[in-house]
Amino acid sequence: MSDKTILLDHGSGGLASQELISGLFLKHLTSPVLKGLEDSAILDNQAGQLVFTTDSYVVDPLFFPGGDIGKLAVHGTINDLAMRGGRPICLSLALILEEGMDYGDLERIIISIRDASETSGVPIVTGDTKVVPRGKGDKVFVNTSGIGFVDESIALSSRNGRPGDAVILSGTMGDHGITIMTRRAGITLEGNLRSDTMALHRLVASILSAYPAQVRTFRDPTRGGVATTLNEIAAASGLTIVLEEEQLPIRVEVRAACEILGLEPLYLANEGKCLAIVDSEKADEILGVMRQTEEGKDAVVIGRLENGRAGRVLINTPIGGSRVVTPLHGEPLPRIC
Amino acid sequence: MSDKTILLDHGSGGLASQELISGLFLKHLTSPVLKGLEDSAILDNQAGQLVFTTDSYVVDPLFFPGGDIGKLAVHGTINDLAMRGGRPICLSLALILEEGMDYGDLERIIISIRDASETSGVPIVTGDTKVVPRGKGDKVFVNTSGIGFVDESIALSSRNGRPGDAVILSGTMGDHGITIMTRRAGITLEGNLRSDTMALHRLVASILSAYPAQVRTFRDPTRGGVATTLNEIAAASGLTIVLEEEQLPIRVEVRAACEILGLEPLYLANEGKCLAIVDSEKADEILGVMRQTEEGKDAVVIGRLENGRAGRVLINTPIGGSRVVTPLHGEPLPRIC
Repeated sequence: MSDKTILLDHGSGGLASQELISGLFLKHLTSPVLKGLEDSAILDNQAGQLVFTTDSYVVDPLFFPGGDIGKLAVHGTINDLAMRGGRPICLSLALILEEGMDYGDLERIIISIRDASETSGVPIVTGDTKVVPRGKGDKVFVNTSGIGFVDESIALSSRNGRPGDAVILSGTMGDHGITIMTRRAGITLEGNLRSDTMALHRLVASILSAYPAQVRTFRDPTRGGVATTLNEIAAASGLTIVLEEEQLPIRVEVRAACEILGLEPLYLANEGKCLAIVDSEKADEILGVMRQTEEGKDAVVIGRLENGRAGRVLINTPIGGSRVVTPLHGEPLPRIC
Repeated sequence: MSDKTILLDHGSGGLASQELISGLFLKHLTSPVLKGLEDSAILDNQAGQLVFTTDSYVVDPLFFPGGDIGKLAVHGTINDLAMRGGRPICLSLALILEEGMDYGDLERIIISIRDASETSGVPIVTGDTKVVPRGKGDKVFVNTSGIGFVDESIALSSRNGRPGDAVILSGTMGDHGITIMTRRAGITLEGNLRSDTMALHRLVASILSAYPAQVRTFRDPTRGGVATTLNEIAAASGLTIVLEEEQLPIRVEVRAACEILGLEPLYLANEGKCLAIVDSEKADEILGVMRQTEEGKDAVVIGRLENGRAGRVLINTPIGGSRVVTPLHGEPLPRIC
């Protein structure tokens, strides 16, 4: 098995494709709907509005401390649904394989997708596989799209921020980005750098069930990091966001690695964190709810929304200064997710 | 504009990404839901069960007579929904761009996606863009996922075939496959070879509204062609399918090109055709409904389901012989869609 590779035939729609589907995908992915092997999945409808999202994953390397492209693809799309207040119900899985890809690597990724899907309780219900010739892809690109339902009473939006609102970050910052960066740079550092990839739908559900009217919006600060996401929220709400540098939660290993590489953690991608903009009067209670969960145990209030220039993010430094935090301009590292 | 190319920065999640989204995607794709620019789309729910599908498109060349990768991606995913009896309501659009891709080519594709989406009445409501370094992709790969609704009374399945059922093909065979093949081979032939890429949801709706109980299944014979799809239906229904070679609708130009290249049209991909397995008593009436539409004007009954070895497809030749039609084994040509 270990010297088996992906062939162009695996994408033909013929017998080799069927073998890949039965021998690999259905061996691990066991949703009854997927097993129907029709070109599309039929699912029971539920109450609420529909939430729909798509994301492609091209992360390099495919495997990294804390996760791999498969886990990222399941968690990332679940999180996009969750950020709108959605209860995720299913995912699609579309693979673009490069001829010559190691079959064992593909199987590791499929097993990881299965594990992430089962742990999250969100099944893969439909899929597609294409194979491109050697040199026209890069081993595997993964697309997951997802569907969820959201109660009609929930209307989260980056435009909803009000002066005085608290900015909560659900945990430490930069773990995914720095893990991929050091891996790609070939740097080995002391300490335990690992991706934070994690599904956040249960954290979001626990907050919304207790405080449906006090949350303005959730956002997951992936590409571009906390800085870029907060700039978008500040612009959409027409307000200034003021952060307290001392409050920013950063693991010691991450901070050390950032200093060595000359990187700013505010711009690093996160794959298991969310920003919550909430009514300041309930911020402490919401923080309490979050800290009772595994996903939100390190949550902190990192700043506030204020009247001021629309779309500006400021940060107060420990020595009493203040500086502007601009959104990300260039690409710090391609293929972070 | 014509010498502009895609840069890694366009996939950063930062300002360059925003420029691509506003300056190109939102310039052409105008769904109010998409304009919200949130990470996922929120949509009104409708009656019925949900239908959900995904497909990636890696066709080479990107542009070909009768269409391009964008048109194919919109029509193909609409058709997957339609084959289950679904009324398509929206699509997602996820692009994997190669650094250095011509910006003008990307814009042509986006315009084509817009046109196909508008003509079909199925909006793009959410999207994603990634950029991979030069040599790690091939200009552009497109993923579209789609959602539809299907009446609970409709239960189409390849397992539903019964002895005596008629096999209807909605039009001529092989047009897409032969167009891509001759294009890739650099062969110029007389006559007008062009892809049949077309959305079939309205054809399906017109049949199902008149004959909801007489259709066993719809299938679109894409990769692997009519031969492979019919083998799957014969296997799922546990019956033999007998085709009449004289009835197979093939355009003169397609037949000529197949003879030159030594190809069998039964295995060529179609992108705007469906197979309908229907109650033989209503086959003529259903054919009448189909022929009144642009999509089904060349529809014909090409064969029947019969008791016999499960999963076998036979073809009766004009000289009184009969041969077995196996499913596709190898890949006749990668990247047909």
